[in-house]
Amino acid sequence: MTTSTRSQTRRGTADIELETRIDALLAALTVEEKVGQLHLAFDLDPEDHREEIAAGLVGAGIYSHGANDVRETPPAPLAGTIAACQRIAREESRLGIPLLFGSDVVHGMRTTLPIPLGLAATWDTELVREAAARAAAEASAEGLHLTFAPMVDISAEHRWGRIGETLGGEPQLTSRMGAALVHGFQSDGRFGATAKHFVGYGLVDADRDQQTLSIGPNALHNVHLRPFRAAVEAGCRAIMVGLHDVDAIPMHAHRRLIRDLLKREWGFTGVVTSDWDGIGQLVDQGIAEDLRDAARQAMLAGVDLDMVSGAYRDHLPELVAAGDVELWMLDDAVRRVLRLKFRAGLFDAGADPAGAPAPLPVRRDTMLARRAAAASMVLLKNADILPLHSNLGVIHLCGPFVEDAGGLLGSWVYEHGEDTVTPADALAAQLDPDELIISDGRFADLAVRHADAADVTVALVGEHPSRSGEDRCLPTAELPVGQLELLRELASLGKPLVVVVAAARPLELRPVLQLADAVLLIWHPGAEAGPTLADVLLGHAAPTGRLPMSLPQTNRTPALGTIERTIGRRLGRSRDTSFGRYLNSLVNPELTLGFGLTYTSFAYSDLELSRAHLPMRAGVVRASVEVVNTGFRPGREVVQLYLRDLVADIVRPQLELADWRAIELDPGRSTRVTFKITPDLFAYTDRELRRRIDPGAVDVIIGPNAALGSSARLLLG
Amino acid sequence: MTTSTRSQTRRGTADIELETRIDALLAALTVEEKVGQLHLAFDLDPEDHREEIAAGLVGAGIYSHGANDVRETPPAPLAGTIAACQRIAREESRLGIPLLFGSDVVHGMRTTLPIPLGLAATWDTELVREAAARAAAEASAEGLHLTFAPMVDISAEHRWGRIGETLGGEPQLTSRMGAALVHGFQSDGRFGATAKHFVGYGLVDADRDQQTLSIGPNALHNVHLRPFRAAVEAGCRAIMVGLHDVDAIPMHAHRRLIRDLLKREWGFTGVVTSDWDGIGQLVDQGIAEDLRDAARQAMLAGVDLDMVSGAYRDHLPELVAAGDVELWMLDDAVRRVLRLKFRAGLFDAGADPAGAPAPLPVRRDTMLARRAAAASMVLLKNADILPLHSNLGVIHLCGPFVEDAGGLLGSWVYEHGEDTVTPADALAAQLDPDELIISDGRFADLAVRHADAADVTVALVGEHPSRSGEDRCLPTAELPVGQLELLRELASLGKPLVVVVAAARPLELRPVLQLADAVLLIWHPGAEAGPTLADVLLGHAAPTGRLPMSLPQTNRTPALGTIERTIGRRLGRSRDTSFGRYLNSLVNPELTLGFGLTYTSFAYSDLELSRAHLPMRAGVVRASVEVVNTGFRPGREVVQLYLRDLVADIVRPQLELADWRAIELDPGRSTRVTFKITPDLFAYTDRELRRRIDPGAVDVIIGPNAALGSSARLLLG
Repeated sequence: MTTSTRSQTRRGTADIELETRIDALLAALTVEEKVGQLHLAFDLDPEDHREEIAAGLVGAGIYSHGANDVRETPPAPLAGTIAACQRIAREESRLGIPLLFGSDVVHGMRTTLPIPLGLAATWDTELVREAAARAAAEASAEGLHLTFAPMVDISAEHRWGRIGETLGGEPQLTSRMGAALVHGFQSDGRFGATAKHFVGYGLVDADRDQQTLSIGPNALHNVHLRPFRAAVEAGCRAIMVGLHDVDAIPMHAHRRLIRDLLKREWGFTGVVTSDWDGIGQLVDQGIAEDLRDAARQAMLAGVDLDMVSGAYRDHLPELVAAGDVELWMLDDAVRRVLRLKFRAGLFDAGADPAGAPAPLPVRRDTMLARRAAAASMVLLKNADILPLHSNLGVIHLCGPFVEDAGGLLGSWVYEHGEDTVTPADALAAQLDPDELIISDGRFADLAVRHADAADVTVALVGEHPSRSGEDRCLPTAELPVGQLELLRELASLGKPLVVVVAAARPLELRPVLQLADAVLLIWHPGAEAGPTLADVLLGHAAPTGRLPMSLPQTNRTPALGTIERTIGRRLGRSRDTSFGRYLNSLVNPELTLGFGLTYTSFAYSDLELSRAHLPMRAGVVRASVEVVNTGFRPGREVVQLYLRDLVADIVRPQLELADWRAIELDPGRSTRVTFKITPDLFAYTDRELRRRIDPGAVDVIIGPNAALGSSARLLLG
Repeated sequence: MTTSTRSQTRRGTADIELETRIDALLAALTVEEKVGQLHLAFDLDPEDHREEIAAGLVGAGIYSHGANDVRETPPAPLAGTIAACQRIAREESRLGIPLLFGSDVVHGMRTTLPIPLGLAATWDTELVREAAARAAAEASAEGLHLTFAPMVDISAEHRWGRIGETLGGEPQLTSRMGAALVHGFQSDGRFGATAKHFVGYGLVDADRDQQTLSIGPNALHNVHLRPFRAAVEAGCRAIMVGLHDVDAIPMHAHRRLIRDLLKREWGFTGVVTSDWDGIGQLVDQGIAEDLRDAARQAMLAGVDLDMVSGAYRDHLPELVAAGDVELWMLDDAVRRVLRLKFRAGLFDAGADPAGAPAPLPVRRDTMLARRAAAASMVLLKNADILPLHSNLGVIHLCGPFVEDAGGLLGSWVYEHGEDTVTPADALAAQLDPDELIISDGRFADLAVRHADAADVTVALVGEHPSRSGEDRCLPTAELPVGQLELLRELASLGKPLVVVVAAARPLELRPVLQLADAVLLIWHPGAEAGPTLADVLLGHAAPTGRLPMSLPQTNRTPALGTIERTIGRRLGRSRDTSFGRYLNSLVNPELTLGFGLTYTSFAYSDLELSRAHLPMRAGVVRASVEVVNTGFRPGREVVQLYLRDLVADIVRPQLELADWRAIELDPGRSTRVTFKITPDLFAYTDRELRRRIDPGAVDVIIGPNAALGSSARLLLG
């Protein structure tokens, strides 16, 4: 593996100058002040923390205002508090080193965008980059320098509370979307992103977030480390380690993965931060005697920043004095924190003493929010009912969200939707009063009565945001209690039924797909959910999202993703077909990674390879396919490239997503979509943990999702 | 680790003589004949396979007559077929090497005993040894030499179809019970046992048996390898590798775990057999080009015996000729197979040419089957209703099993229960006709009517054996559809309700525990289920089983076992109590490892340590507790010792079962139960994969199950 990333070698003299300035600062700091730089405190306040800040005993602050608790009032603005703390640090501390402020700006701050799983469903890296850039600008305007996002953990567990914060279940999709978020968050050159939770956290069991993981090196390298590598290559400024243990070694004490792999082998020059109290929890995990020992182990492992446990602040000076922690380790950690502060512009000449750039207008970016929302919505079924025709008659809109825009914002929100337009109001604004009946979700019997009186019912069901998030796991990912029963009752009326599902996880939607004439999965779309949904229902915008992970195919077991490794007995391919009952096969396109309909349709034909042989050394083969818009509207199609390595040193996935291209086509028009295939697409980490590409036959599959596509065989060698 | 086991070093001159005889045979064999010794064929038949046997192209045979398919007729006896095949091998093959015959004799052959999970529930190694000895004697009488049992895979997954074949979810319990089965099966010095499925197979996902596993070296060494090590130390003659892959390396090609660890490091001298078509499946798993390549990889990895794939037979001679497999490897594999045949007595002077010793009487051992059944039954609740008092009035017995003794036999059965006594008949034999009403499980409404007319209802519900076994996974381990509804209806009548649950897995019984006055979990008890159940219900025998693994505490997630590693945020012990919602705690004794009531009760008091300090070098501390029978009947109590290592190099389990003692006490009598605690009880494999014992504080807990007990702190050092 390379020892430095492209984004790091590109620098040069500016880098040298920066490191020289850090050297000078380091030389001026006492050990206590150095340790202060590594302490990340919760809810810093100019009243309560004046002495601590002035003494240089704290280097950074975290505000968790965006956490998705069920709250009555929106969080207070941060800018004033941050500016006051910053002034104390600059003006009252010995060396005037500014504080670094971070918060969980996950899917927007003033402009609440779709949740991360919804952003991943856009399969649109440019849009996602733009969304993150906007979020960073809004956060910078509050005086923040760092977000604790993106989360690039890979999971197939739909019942997990945090699945909605991930970017799906596929390493390549997660890697690209994660890198796009990093590029977007960091696009102004100052604000920083944090990839988390290093590494393997997506494997936690359904009912416990803080889980011990069973994982071996092959799964780590070929699946879970990949998006972190992509984030580092994108120049991500921070990495957060998870609260879990990996094969019985807590991540906060995992020297091999942090100091040896991430820092030394990958050449990561940013900050490694702990998760909430993660260093302190080494005591609870039973590998540290006490907080002093926990501080020692975390520092040796390579954790730079101590989030709120206080273990570093209280014990590192003594550990250094006693020789239990070498000074170079402390200095390296401090250097990384100072580097982050320099990059954040905190030491720039003429910087506002309060640390904030001139505030941006804090009104939300309505157009961006609408574009992102429509692009994240996945149309799973459409029996010729959407968009709703203008001569359809009376539309009945029902469900708990129709007059509650806040419920569609998702987790990690800084605004609570007071000024957002509800789906009911948005639809009412586009229809005559006698064309619309609303049932607000309180009375199921009233909804049935209204549905009976209307010509079509749109039921907006799904999960409240408080049903997902940290520590919000479900035993089974069905719709909330009672909703499916209501849908059955509505379907029994014999009138067209459109079901719109808001959710922060891939819910079990098979029964809904059977009942409804159309099913639209909208995740939690953010601040412009109402107007976007009205536009999509009435055909003024098209839903263009694609599933970022498979939906469950049985009612209480995790979905089968493409990253599932091949097993001996497989449906349709096994030599022993009498064992065809095994489920290891992607059988339902509408439940599979990459699936999504839109308001037109596409057909694929004529898969071609430019040659049948791909030379191992610098070879290139072009694989192309003809795609035609066979419908009656212009539309967007995401053409997907999957690969299968037929014989390898270890068991490889059944399919690996390698690439995709989004195209826009007018009705009747066609185009040829071409992918460049190079040998490195087949690289993997073998059982000796070496990077490897095998000569031999491979399959190249191009299609509209992971379950459908044409396949051609290629010979590497 | 030691390089040879005790049972192996104990031999000596006899061993040398044996190896000399093998040398001579090896020298006489052609390569093709050697390879023939490694071919294990399915359903060998004197008609169809005469030429193959006579040519020396097959060395062993497997019959899977016992598999738990739903069959109309019992399997035909094997003895005649085996004898005829054996005669061909001895008399018509060039060197007259006898065949080795194996079958899945899992829980008895003529005497169907409780399923393995039920045997583990006895917590009685002596009884289990006796049960296995009987099974081996019955199998030997058929001409068999080997059973493909015990299964020592460790799993917490109650939905897994094969959980009933395991010995529970705890490494120490599985190790001891597995060793007891090995000792029992092999007690005549000839018959052999096969520990399986090496290694980690218990981690398969709920919905797929043949699964890829995510597992790291710490979990392998500290949990999953332990019972295999115990089996090897017990002298187990064969090990079967699983069809799964371990961290992307298929077990059938896992040289590090088979050749390097099991054979070289542990000094295992027995046979490593493939699982069904396991070598062939290396092609399907995508690591072998073809069967030739699969044969090469399996041989290099150290798999000796090829079960049915034919890859060895068809390709090994050529692989050896081409130098792709070295001759010493082939010779080592053949030597192991021949060694097994010698040990089985197949070359003994005066051996019956048909290979079978004088047949034992094949009538079942009724007394053993009854003792084992009663000892396996776990009484989970008893609100003073069991045993049923003689003056209780009319007993109503209902449920699908009451007139179907076959349904209580379990999986892997060679007899189908035609001559077994049903629960209905067994109870009728002990009661006056007017004291008993039977509902046979067909009409639920009739059962409710009968229950209303009776004074007490005993509902015998649970799983048919065909609901468990290979490829019989469930999405959720509830009672079969409709049973809980019937129990609710019965409970609503307001009369005493006893629920007896037959099952091959730890079902979700929380709702049953709430509804019923008594709950008795009987697993699948075997051929004497009916009479034993009648005895237990009427008090002529007491149920004395203990849970061999925890029952699920939430309705659709795996149970929390004691092997769960400690996490940072824990209920009641975390430094941060606001995160108390995490479930990582053993809260309900009646759902926990080791729990089981009987017909009397016991109280514990006065935990004492002989000293507070345990020297690391050869130290001993005696931990003892006073136990008194506080009830009105004599009874059996299983006193359990658990340990907790407070600070270690890696995250350790919350509790580890270390030892247990069964005691029998008369009413009012007490005794002091003493455990010897030595430092090696705290040994584990650390992150460098070294065996390690940490100085420092540990907790010693003695109690009646994993959730209850008194604790004392001990200082190692």
